[in-house]
Amino acid sequence: MKEFHDLADFTAEEIQQLLDLAARLKRQPEPRALEGKVMALLFMSPSLRTLASFQAAMHRLGGGAFVISPDMSIHGLETRPGIVMDGMAAEHIREAVPVIASYADVMGIRAFAERRSLEHDLADREYQAMRGLVQLPLINMESAIQHPCQSLADWQTLDELGIPRQGGRFVLSWASHPNALPLAVPATTVKMAAMRGMDVTVLRPDGFELPEAIMQQARQLAAASGGSVTETDERAEAMRDAHVIYAKSWSSTRHYGDKLADAELRRQHEDWCVDEDWFATARPDCRFMHCLPVRRGVVVADRILDGPRSVVIQEAQNRMYAQMAVLHAMLAGGSKP
Amino acid sequence: MKEFHDLADFTAEEIQQLLDLAARLKRQPEPRALEGKVMALLFMSPSLRTLASFQAAMHRLGGGAFVISPDMSIHGLETRPGIVMDGMAAEHIREAVPVIASYADVMGIRAFAERRSLEHDLADREYQAMRGLVQLPLINMESAIQHPCQSLADWQTLDELGIPRQGGRFVLSWASHPNALPLAVPATTVKMAAMRGMDVTVLRPDGFELPEAIMQQARQLAAASGGSVTETDERAEAMRDAHVIYAKSWSSTRHYGDKLADAELRRQHEDWCVDEDWFATARPDCRFMHCLPVRRGVVVADRILDGPRSVVIQEAQNRMYAQMAVLHAMLAGGSKP
Amino acid sequence: MKEFHDLADFTAEEIQQLLDLAARLKRQPEPRALEGKVMALLFMSPSLRTLASFQAAMHRLGGGAFVISPDMSIHGLETRPGIVMDGMAAEHIREAVPVIASYADVMGIRAFAERRSLEHDLADREYQAMRGLVQLPLINMESAIQHPCQSLADWQTLDELGIPRQGGRFVLSWASHPNALPLAVPATTVKMAAMRGMDVTVLRPDGFELPEAIMQQARQLAAASGGSVTETDERAEAMRDAHVIYAKSWSSTRHYGDKLADAELRRQHEDWCVDEDWFATARPDCRFMHCLPVRRGVVVADRILDGPRSVVIQEAQNRMYAQMAVLHAMLAGGSKP
Repeated sequence: MKEFHDLADFTAEEIQQLLDLAARLKRQPEPRALEGKVMALLFMSPSLRTLASFQAAMHRLGGGAFVISPDMSIHGLETRPGIVMDGMAAEHIREAVPVIASYADVMGIRAFAERRSLEHDLADREYQAMRGLVQLPLINMESAIQHPCQSLADWQTLDELGIPRQGGRFVLSWASHPNALPLAVPATTVKMAAMRGMDVTVLRPDGFELPEAIMQQARQLAAASGGSVTETDERAEAMRDAHVIYAKSWSSTRHYGDKLADAELRRQHEDWCVDEDWFATARPDCRFMHCLPVRRGVVVADRILDGPRSVVIQEAQNRMYAQMAVLHAMLAGGSKP
Repeated sequence: MKEFHDLADFTAEEIQQLLDLAARLKRQPEPRALEGKVMALLFMSPSLRTLASFQAAMHRLGGGAFVISPDMSIHGLETRPGIVMDGMAAEHIREAVPVIASYADVMGIRAFAERRSLEHDLADREYQAMRGLVQLPLINMESAIQHPCQSLADWQTLDELGIPRQGGRFVLSWASHPNALPLAVPATTVKMAAMRGMDVTVLRPDGFELPEAIMQQARQLAAASGGSVTETDERAEAMRDAHVIYAKSWSSTRHYGDKLADAELRRQHEDWCVDEDWFATARPDCRFMHCLPVRRGVVVADRILDGPRSVVIQEAQNRMYAQMAVLHAMLAGGSKP
Repeated sequence: MKEFHDLADFTAEEIQQLLDLAARLKRQPEPRALEGKVMALLFMSPSLRTLASFQAAMHRLGGGAFVISPDMSIHGLETRPGIVMDGMAAEHIREAVPVIASYADVMGIRAFAERRSLEHDLADREYQAMRGLVQLPLINMESAIQHPCQSLADWQTLDELGIPRQGGRFVLSWASHPNALPLAVPATTVKMAAMRGMDVTVLRPDGFELPEAIMQQARQLAAASGGSVTETDERAEAMRDAHVIYAKSWSSTRHYGDKLADAELRRQHEDWCVDEDWFATARPDCRFMHCLPVRRGVVVADRILDGPRSVVIQEAQNRMYAQMAVLHAMLAGGSKP
């Protein structure tokens, strides 16, 4: 396994092998599996869960990790090709990325969306520019449009909760938020649930439709797995018999890159804060998922986060086990996708 | 051993077991004792000794550590309960703390005093709020009113120096400083010396009395150990036959939380800079202790720090060994307090 | 081996032993050689390669590392002796450095040039002040006038490329840059190439001569090794039959510490950007070296960095292997210089 970038690059059987490996490593530690091995963690954007869980994952397997973030160095990192570097940035990614990789056995890169042009972000330009500079096994730690580690952990969480694949009803819901957030999590989540064979409903206000390219890919994945994907703004209908609601805010795709128009539109939907009344038509044991960080009282009410529906801590913890499986598969031959 | 929070939670015998373990690990390394184990270090306030010594302690025992500080993440961390998070903070401690803990086998938390209300800080509100969110073995890395790792290391240092328990004379002295500092170190130090059975004198100017709740607890500990605790502003008297002076600045308790009144009062005591003349009535070999960082020429004269009385580096180094003992007791069953 | 500070402290035979060890560790990992050992990394100035490569080096040898940089702590670190610390800095290097060292088996220190007085920087005052406080094995991670880890890695790279020692022609060339940079790399590089027995030409515009003390030391080293050192501003002449050009910008030594005069002088030499036409008189396979970070389009043209002449990534990667050899020699007895 040379790269972990897009869940859709793998067959359902390969995902299953990774999940089995994650479950095994959770039960049965292998504290010397990656002895002498090093992971390079390059963060172009800030992080808490990813920063912590990858370091912990490497330590638990007997390896080590180092972290590079642009503010730790002299240099902002320049990303534009062909530029005369007479400004602030003292180093270009064309040197920095291969150098960082040269110290490691596996590399993780985080590079958020620019959120100026939807086309640019769907093409994942920043990440792809860096990806092309790395020969090592490479893990996408969240890019403009991908967050495969989150989705692998979420799949593992759904399995642990016994939520059915075929016939499982999964609602991905937009939620209120003060800022225009990236599309990586919703785009990856809708594909994950579709690949898992679930009946997926994307619930969002008008103007916050997911990009058609993403929806189309999700529908193809659902067709292959026996699932389905639909999109609506009708909450009660979307939530009917749902096993799980996955809440997440994202930018308006209608006004992508236009901060003012986005802000005006999202202000009209401040009532999209998940609360107990959302669950009226859902299954009684319907679960609440979120990738974190989450704004309490804005995205979701305290009583949901603090109540029995919430599995957000379990999701976050599974980040570590899912990533241990990916690292093991890459470096210790632990599974063979 | 599930928690290391307050030295007074332990019997003198349990402390002795930890100190024996620290001494053993100093002599006889155990580089695989914590193989595959991970420590999470959460700093809500900055650090040098604690940051370095805990990472070194985990490495020496074969484990690993990761560090989270709020400025490393997108998010300031919100601590207030029940708040609508529509401001700057993107994450609440109610998620962040359990998530960070979920990646680790043991967790350390540092959260300084707010220094607005003495009652609030004596109740250690910030730390207690986070403490309640952690199921793991937990180490207090300095809170508003506790610094048990410092005191365990100081106890070890006193033992190494051969300073007697019964009959040992310990002076905890206030010292000059440009800023109003927290009470954690003096509060923990007076209790430590009392538990150790020493005759403790708190030397401080009028207006800088230690809180009565702390003094009362210290007197109870002294009663149990055969020591004593008194408080005075008479320097020569306090220092008479002293084995050791432990200098530290702290906030005025009379004007706690009132920066201007505190500053005015402390300006009157800029002569409280420990120098050789302080030792006139002390034992000739009286030692100088300080938890560091220390302001030279303000808290203490260079000639004292650079001279034979000073044991500040030994104290700092013992932080690592004392913490190795605590980690070993928690995770490797190395002693059974 | 107690210290790695100046390549000239070692004989050519001792350097050879370190390079042999580096090559062996590159071929044949020793993931338990430094089990339970800890490196302290103290950065008074920012870093990317050094930060990453030392952490990776320690992990690969089974040890661990921790990083301290002044902005991570409460305290700026005070360096001036005898000062009354009533300002911003809360800690003096006289405590901080021995304390950090007390947690480690080996320490690395980075402290850049002040760039106010040439005499001050040639005497390496900041670094020497800290060096005197450390009893541990100590590695210079770049000071005002030394960068031995870079030069050891560069020597290894020259060997790997098969560039001859005797008769090898090495050009160290000044290059354009928006800022007045330190002298550490050119000063160390000219000595390294001289020690290696090469014919070294320092190519620089008028006003950017290397300090006479450095040139004199380089000439002595060349005399001992059978090499030579000359200085010129004639590009075509300098580059004649060159095996390698090592580009680097540095401050004007004529106007050292005078930012405006330096800026005015360097503005006249913005054409000192290494490009293909520089190689007209060189050997056809003449290589391009640089220590990184490098400003594209300012120091060197993209086509050189991206073309077959460039070995900058190999140099950077060899930092890790060279440093592994130094660490191994210091802590595992891996070679005996």
